[in-house]
Amino acid sequence: MIATKTDANNGDFPQFPNSQKVYIKGQQPGVNVPFREITLNDTKTYTGAIEKNQPVRVYDTSGPWSDPEFHGDVRLGLPALREDWIRSRGDVESYEGRKVQPIDNGYLSEEHSRLASEKGGRNGALYEFTRVRQPLKAKSHPVTQLYYARKGIITPEMEFIAIRENMKLQEQSANIEMSANSERNSLRIQHPGHSWGASIPKEITPEFVRDEVARGRAIIPSNINHPELEPMIIGRNFLVKINANIGNSAITSSIEEEVEKMRWSTLWGADTVMDLSTGKNIHATREWILRNSPVPIGTVPIYQALEKVGGRAEDLTWEIYRDTLIEQAEQGVDYFTIHAGVLLRFIPWTARRMTGIVSRGGSILAKWCLTHHKENFLYTHWDEICEIMAAYDVSFSIGDGLRPGSIADANDEAQFGELKVQGELVERAWKHSVQTICEGPGHVPMHMIQENMQKQLEWCKEAPFYTLGPLTTDIAPGYDHITSGIGAAMIGWYGTAMLCYVTPKEHLGLPNREDVREGVVTYKIAAHAADLAKGHPGAQYRDNALSKARFEFRWEDQFNLSLDPLKARSFHDETLPQDGAKAAHFCSMCGPQFCSMKITEDVRKYAAEKGLDANSAVDQGMREMSEKFVEKGGEVYVK
Amino acid sequence: MIATKTDANNGDFPQFPNSQKVYIKGQQPGVNVPFREITLNDTKTYTGAIEKNQPVRVYDTSGPWSDPEFHGDVRLGLPALREDWIRSRGDVESYEGRKVQPIDNGYLSEEHSRLASEKGGRNGALYEFTRVRQPLKAKSHPVTQLYYARKGIITPEMEFIAIRENMKLQEQSANIEMSANSERNSLRIQHPGHSWGASIPKEITPEFVRDEVARGRAIIPSNINHPELEPMIIGRNFLVKINANIGNSAITSSIEEEVEKMRWSTLWGADTVMDLSTGKNIHATREWILRNSPVPIGTVPIYQALEKVGGRAEDLTWEIYRDTLIEQAEQGVDYFTIHAGVLLRFIPWTARRMTGIVSRGGSILAKWCLTHHKENFLYTHWDEICEIMAAYDVSFSIGDGLRPGSIADANDEAQFGELKVQGELVERAWKHSVQTICEGPGHVPMHMIQENMQKQLEWCKEAPFYTLGPLTTDIAPGYDHITSGIGAAMIGWYGTAMLCYVTPKEHLGLPNREDVREGVVTYKIAAHAADLAKGHPGAQYRDNALSKARFEFRWEDQFNLSLDPLKARSFHDETLPQDGAKAAHFCSMCGPQFCSMKITEDVRKYAAEKGLDANSAVDQGMREMSEKFVEKGGEVYVK
Repeated sequence: MIATKTDANNGDFPQFPNSQKVYIKGQQPGVNVPFREITLNDTKTYTGAIEKNQPVRVYDTSGPWSDPEFHGDVRLGLPALREDWIRSRGDVESYEGRKVQPIDNGYLSEEHSRLASEKGGRNGALYEFTRVRQPLKAKSHPVTQLYYARKGIITPEMEFIAIRENMKLQEQSANIEMSANSERNSLRIQHPGHSWGASIPKEITPEFVRDEVARGRAIIPSNINHPELEPMIIGRNFLVKINANIGNSAITSSIEEEVEKMRWSTLWGADTVMDLSTGKNIHATREWILRNSPVPIGTVPIYQALEKVGGRAEDLTWEIYRDTLIEQAEQGVDYFTIHAGVLLRFIPWTARRMTGIVSRGGSILAKWCLTHHKENFLYTHWDEICEIMAAYDVSFSIGDGLRPGSIADANDEAQFGELKVQGELVERAWKHSVQTICEGPGHVPMHMIQENMQKQLEWCKEAPFYTLGPLTTDIAPGYDHITSGIGAAMIGWYGTAMLCYVTPKEHLGLPNREDVREGVVTYKIAAHAADLAKGHPGAQYRDNALSKARFEFRWEDQFNLSLDPLKARSFHDETLPQDGAKAAHFCSMCGPQFCSMKITEDVRKYAAEKGLDANSAVDQGMREMSEKFVEKGGEVYVK
Repeated sequence: MIATKTDANNGDFPQFPNSQKVYIKGQQPGVNVPFREITLNDTKTYTGAIEKNQPVRVYDTSGPWSDPEFHGDVRLGLPALREDWIRSRGDVESYEGRKVQPIDNGYLSEEHSRLASEKGGRNGALYEFTRVRQPLKAKSHPVTQLYYARKGIITPEMEFIAIRENMKLQEQSANIEMSANSERNSLRIQHPGHSWGASIPKEITPEFVRDEVARGRAIIPSNINHPELEPMIIGRNFLVKINANIGNSAITSSIEEEVEKMRWSTLWGADTVMDLSTGKNIHATREWILRNSPVPIGTVPIYQALEKVGGRAEDLTWEIYRDTLIEQAEQGVDYFTIHAGVLLRFIPWTARRMTGIVSRGGSILAKWCLTHHKENFLYTHWDEICEIMAAYDVSFSIGDGLRPGSIADANDEAQFGELKVQGELVERAWKHSVQTICEGPGHVPMHMIQENMQKQLEWCKEAPFYTLGPLTTDIAPGYDHITSGIGAAMIGWYGTAMLCYVTPKEHLGLPNREDVREGVVTYKIAAHAADLAKGHPGAQYRDNALSKARFEFRWEDQFNLSLDPLKARSFHDETLPQDGAKAAHFCSMCGPQFCSMKITEDVRKYAAEKGLDANSAVDQGMREMSEKFVEKGGEVYVK
């Protein structure tokens, strides 16, 4: 049985404390943008005065599932939020669609499939999802957001995104005066990514969203057959996004687990989810995920195509691959990773590498190319693939099949050879109005990261970059969320638009729920650190709200404003489990007498008692007093 | 009862698998440098041939405790490795020393102290360590490594370090051909830290160690009363080091726990340990730690001084502080954090900050300065402090009492005001031949990190920098080892010599054993990522050895070469617990049919079968063949 929403909320799915779902309406019909609003306690100053702290709004990727007003059921899927937007454009039509075949789920015949289903499917999952809609496809012209953007049309998706990305709104909600330092910080920004083209504006407008999409600098992954998704944008002049990979494999995990992992990862903040399932029930697993996902879903279609030919790379054909693309486009997959840059001539260059080819997709194509001694069929059929993508608004995520799998292989000729081809493919995709991003490494030491970003911006004409980490050392399996979080934060700062998470299980095994949580939170940290460093307007409001709470010993607020309120609270409670401690004016590290924050409060109090108003006269007044002291003291103490 | 070594090794203290302790002898008597040597399995190539993999030697901070030949007992302490070196220099003398007083342990009288002791001390710890040696101090001139270095003397400590730091030795032991890429990597290094002065040489010689110490660019923390320590160096032309903080507080933990935390943190790789104990039994806790520590121990003496005046900062006096310095110098503390840069005139600048003063030491001094309206007594007594330090070879770690406690406060006038004073204090310390490093922030967004390093190098005349993180965002309490690991790796690359670890409990509570392990391993990652990016000669050999093992499906070797072999293995076993899986030619993520590394192996095999030797002809031969194909294929497929 697939767990229903109610089941899932019983204990397993935490509610974030003091949080409520709020929506901001746009001008176009149906544009209703979700946020999570965190209510804060009052500040008690040392004079006894009470100051209100306004609630803080944060970006929310968890979809209707986290709305207590929404009574959903994973067996029915999410409401089709975008259906009216898509249909009202008048350029799509519904049709019968490709019939689902036993092979789509890894079965050789209807009989096999039926037997498996009767047994409740693998691992007892009820694996058939009852489809309620016929697929849509374009009638005549491309139906991509890029096509509309170039026509000057601001779609409801674009308006939705402008509201969602507009940190100004959230900063106001937080009612926090940005300190002089924040201004200073944003003035000091120096990073090569932003010497390219437009920088991030003070306010994100629908027109800015449209313009960035039209230029190819950002994409809105949004298949017309995935109307359930809440629109989001991937581009370096917006908030840095993160992707979480899920997916069953030939060895472990079930449909039910994968649907729950998708919901779990969006709860913690995943902006998109890639379903990398292999083995049985790939089609069914994907259907369940798509129908229940509020975020864009990406896949690597060659994985399923390979299953259809029994795992023999050399048996892959363009026809089987093409059929798989259509199958997945009709289901509503929002972006496809396609390793069309793995060209025959690059493959020999990998034989001398420390770790050869580590991308699954890359190695499948390499094997196919070598066996047939022919050019990669994804490359040779690129234009036909573009036509399919344009008809459903599936976005390209051009794979980096030759990414380095170790520090020793970073930035080598194979990697950069492929990157140049990615650039060529971007331009060809754009001719078909297909939205496109490029995938990047991998394993790269810190001093070689920036070169990746610079070359990608130049060669791929500013199409958004989407990197896996990169991992900055190879020596810490079990901690690769951290080795890669370092590289991810840096490359995000340099201009990467989306970061593919890495969990602690990378290189070792499949992530469980706790690994997914750890991976997502680590990557939210990397993305946010990058937003701060890029000077994203208002990115700092949440840091400021949390730091203010910390300084004022509002423990509950400190927990609730953090990326993982539950862990923050439980860590605190390990040392001081009493409820009283959470309101106490000292912290658990130093005890009541010895707390530096308490002493600073005393400093402020002292300053106030001496008639020095901390908000105005203090600087001037104390400066004069100090200077006087230094003059005098200078004679006594300083040589 | 303090746990004996034998107790501790029963289960709790893991042995790293396939590892043995090895020693390399130097030329001077008693120079015998420990390493951990990891034995590897053979490589089985696809042709069936067997290739030996030489064992890999790694830097080892765990001291004699990890040597099975050593039968120690924490009640007796470690052997006095350096005693002969120190005495044979002929410039020290032993003396009665300061009598330990009840107040040193937080008791008001002998009676209180006796009663507590009879009860077994707080938390049942047997807290008196039987001292076996009288303290030593200088007879006439400074007895610091800086003094000797300037005289041109290569001490046994310096030779020990040269062997320990010499990655060339280890690279040879690993028998790994550094790939062409490694050469390329080191040529691409661009970082401002190393445009200053000498760069890292290909081989670390004793003379290079001496020269760096003489220039003040590196220190060897090594109190003459801590003969148990194994010499190590802190400087940016050496391996980046990490420090682990331990220490009881007024609220939790016991002596026994602290000694075990020290041993535990050095097992995982801590290069130095700071004992930040507060509350009762500070003196006794420190004695236990020092007598059992193979790494340098640092403290913040003002913490104990404050305990002696009942926690009232305003009651602190120079006399009490001076007495505490001598007490700790006689015990053997290797470096003191002293917040002498917190000047009266800077304090008002902190009142308008988001988070005021967050350093405990800084806030104590700030309170003292404001209350008395006098200049910081540590600043005014600096030269007297230097004389004490020089007589025992205690190194300065000049505190950053005004470091930013939030992103909003980064790089402000208070912080940089203090940094300039740190520079002045460095020069004054050097006049007294006292080894000196400077402490740095704190909370700093990524784009503002480099400025910290640049200013520190300039203002502090290249004295080594020792930073806490920095944390690159404030919004992730519970994950601050990660928010700070990002900043630590970056500032390490830019030139910081030692990184003070942050555990997941930062801001929330006191770290337990698992938090210490997580913090240490995270910081080993940051330090190693920085070593790679700085181009430390041979730093990459361990990455290469592990990547080679990974690529060849030598699972056991992959685990054993990692920073945390136990976690790596347990994560793998969660998915595939069978022993057979650890030798299997596929990994747990993708299953037998679908493994990219297996496919790459097929690519190599294929290349070999076609007569293309992967090591020589492949590049040229395949390149020609591919080019031919592209010419032909170009007409068929590419426009």
